[in-house]
Amino acid sequence: MSQTTVATAGVASPGVDRIARLEVHDVRFRTSLERDGSDAMNPFPDYSAAYLILTTDAGETGYAMVFTVGRGNDVQAAAIKAFEPLVVGVSIEEAVADTRAFARRLIGDSQLRWLGPEKGAIHMAAGAVVNAVWDIAARRAGKPLWRLLADLSPEQIVALVDFRYLRDALTEEEALAILRAAEPGKPERVAMLLERGQPAYTTTPGWLGYDDAKLARLCAEAVDDGFELIKLKVGADPAEDVRRFGVARAAVGPGTAIAIDANQVWGVPEAIAWITELAPFDPYWIEEPTMPDEILGHAAIRAAVAPIRVATGEHVANPIMFKQLLQAAAVDVLQIDACRVGGVNENVATILLAAKFGVPVCPHAGGVGLCELVQHLAMFDFVAVSGDWDGRYLEYVDHLHEHFATPVVIESGRYRAPLAPGSGAEMITESVRAHTYPTGSVWRDG
Amino acid sequence: MSQTTVATAGVASPGVDRIARLEVHDVRFRTSLERDGSDAMNPFPDYSAAYLILTTDAGETGYAMVFTVGRGNDVQAAAIKAFEPLVVGVSIEEAVADTRAFARRLIGDSQLRWLGPEKGAIHMAAGAVVNAVWDIAARRAGKPLWRLLADLSPEQIVALVDFRYLRDALTEEEALAILRAAEPGKPERVAMLLERGQPAYTTTPGWLGYDDAKLARLCAEAVDDGFELIKLKVGADPAEDVRRFGVARAAVGPGTAIAIDANQVWGVPEAIAWITELAPFDPYWIEEPTMPDEILGHAAIRAAVAPIRVATGEHVANPIMFKQLLQAAAVDVLQIDACRVGGVNENVATILLAAKFGVPVCPHAGGVGLCELVQHLAMFDFVAVSGDWDGRYLEYVDHLHEHFATPVVIESGRYRAPLAPGSGAEMITESVRAHTYPTGSVWRDG
Repeated sequence: MSQTTVATAGVASPGVDRIARLEVHDVRFRTSLERDGSDAMNPFPDYSAAYLILTTDAGETGYAMVFTVGRGNDVQAAAIKAFEPLVVGVSIEEAVADTRAFARRLIGDSQLRWLGPEKGAIHMAAGAVVNAVWDIAARRAGKPLWRLLADLSPEQIVALVDFRYLRDALTEEEALAILRAAEPGKPERVAMLLERGQPAYTTTPGWLGYDDAKLARLCAEAVDDGFELIKLKVGADPAEDVRRFGVARAAVGPGTAIAIDANQVWGVPEAIAWITELAPFDPYWIEEPTMPDEILGHAAIRAAVAPIRVATGEHVANPIMFKQLLQAAAVDVLQIDACRVGGVNENVATILLAAKFGVPVCPHAGGVGLCELVQHLAMFDFVAVSGDWDGRYLEYVDHLHEHFATPVVIESGRYRAPLAPGSGAEMITESVRAHTYPTGSVWRDG
Repeated sequence: MSQTTVATAGVASPGVDRIARLEVHDVRFRTSLERDGSDAMNPFPDYSAAYLILTTDAGETGYAMVFTVGRGNDVQAAAIKAFEPLVVGVSIEEAVADTRAFARRLIGDSQLRWLGPEKGAIHMAAGAVVNAVWDIAARRAGKPLWRLLADLSPEQIVALVDFRYLRDALTEEEALAILRAAEPGKPERVAMLLERGQPAYTTTPGWLGYDDAKLARLCAEAVDDGFELIKLKVGADPAEDVRRFGVARAAVGPGTAIAIDANQVWGVPEAIAWITELAPFDPYWIEEPTMPDEILGHAAIRAAVAPIRVATGEHVANPIMFKQLLQAAAVDVLQIDACRVGGVNENVATILLAAKFGVPVCPHAGGVGLCELVQHLAMFDFVAVSGDWDGRYLEYVDHLHEHFATPVVIESGRYRAPLAPGSGAEMITESVRAHTYPTGSVWRDG
């Protein structure tokens, strides 16, 4: 396949609605000014989105994004743009009818794949394009994405997954059996979800850049808001961590669980020593104790700090890595992210792998739009795969929701199930314009 | 750290030579026309380079590149360009004096790191910038890179490595012991290398797109040229593989070893079945039997197909993944690549890890400039770390060397040790101009 000819590009033919335009915006928020989102690895993030709009000949639009923390958002936008020749001209009917085949064509492109493979900027870019097609699919169906996925038959769900590198841990038959076992009670769970909402936890209080007063105040507010679990960032300084954990515990009382998150700052021996020091405070889980590629490292840490739960996933590149974390008994909690992997299809694969190994999925959210996006996957997991809420908490952070067309709704520590058709990725046009880097008003005037 | 201020950028001060310019070229060769480089995963590659030139205030220049296979080379170039604000203004003396600190600043940048972490386009980009500084360091020392590295003391070599995520497998003390044990005989090995050259193997005959006649002719030529090991691409069709293996064996005779390379096309069970079918032909190694992230998968394959050697590495993203492949006893041969990881420093780390576990390093080469670059790392390994050539073959492919200022020299199946100062990455200006995509003459007129 040469630079100029691409097999997947279609030709104009009457009556077929094709993807006509792939448009990417470099949108950045100046969160570093308040140190919102500050942690041991990301002291000064500027929450950003490489924001994608797909438009068809008929004028249908699909929205998606890749979340980044500032510098490099332009590289991520360029990576999404690189898929334009593979996407423009493709029949939207065909893409929606077989998202696995559509995703394979992008993820498996023999030239673009070299930049990963199946990891990093190019893989997240493929995921965004796949997710934009899912946004169109949900809008066409008149359903929120979670409902579109949950209403599929077990056979249709299995047909979303590329099993090529997964069969040694999960076969098509095993996946089918898991989904069929979850069929009874689906209507009841949909009703429960609509009535009560999806259980959440909050990271809002725990950013490393906040002082004790702000930490204590936000912890107390989290409890008042009905959250049963909060999360603190740790890993910058052991004495500081002990002190802040004490402040948080005093503020929330004994009834609220506290998870901790080191954002990959430790090597394996260091992680074990540090976590052991914090063990007396009974952390609900330790998140990202080391580098996300560390399958064997997470297994060693988990064995050493048990019964403290080990959680990771927001930086895990693909289902092949999630599969190995499960095979190695390296994690107690899987934290999928809506924008890190190759789209909805890969997240469905990971949710099925987690079910096979009996590990709960507690999705990563926050940033820009991650709550709006990933809530659909958590709700699909509850209704159609795991079938229960036990130990399953969906992360919530109260940043930047006002920039979305259908922002998440949180009530007494739970996500209300979204009802609007689509995936939740659509941003408000004026927000995109104002935060476009470097020409938007917030950057020009700042 | 906001978008606009970057801690590492220096200020003009007299007498200090600083990095003044970071310049990237999108260079692409039309190799797909001849199907050179065609394999089971890459049917039509256009060998390309995101080519970097660093220039200092004093006019010193350092060259480096990231190899890609066509589409996406522009994304890779954008990823390199993203490091400009972190690099321009940095004292070249400081960068050369402490390449580990320089590399850490790039690889650990809290915003750019999000696009990896430590993998994919952004990590390869950081590696290119680090390698360009090494090119300047070698030119300043008036030595080829292999000699600059080999002449360092054990303490200086250990000081190149970031041990943060490696200590559970290799400590500074263990690395120092390995290097000290290799000190005796260094001068003799330098003399041997200069006299005899580094042992190589060739992949020139084995591309999947070649017909039997071309395969047989190139196999015979490889034997005449003095190669003891050749490599065939496999994995497209089992019957075809059996037939082509027969053609190659007949052409080279019993005295020449034949390795096979599946370029990641198989899942784990499929790989075991397919390799078992080819076992009667006694392949010297099976390369990339599955996806490079498959630490546990490679371990399972290796256990199942022993005594056939399992090799991988050209797509392994960082030393943390190499470390786990070694910890899991998943590989018999480590294939480092000069452009895949975060530069010379990470490759030194991997060479030390391989020595700790007693696994030979057989570097990946070919593409554009990979032979010119990686030969220096293989020669450093021989002189200063492993101390022998046993089972250590450096890949050779006879493509595109004519575009380099100091092309590799192969004699009777061995690489002559390069003598020119630098890392070998400098391309001929006219080649860069003619192959710049899409404006260069070969693209404009093609």
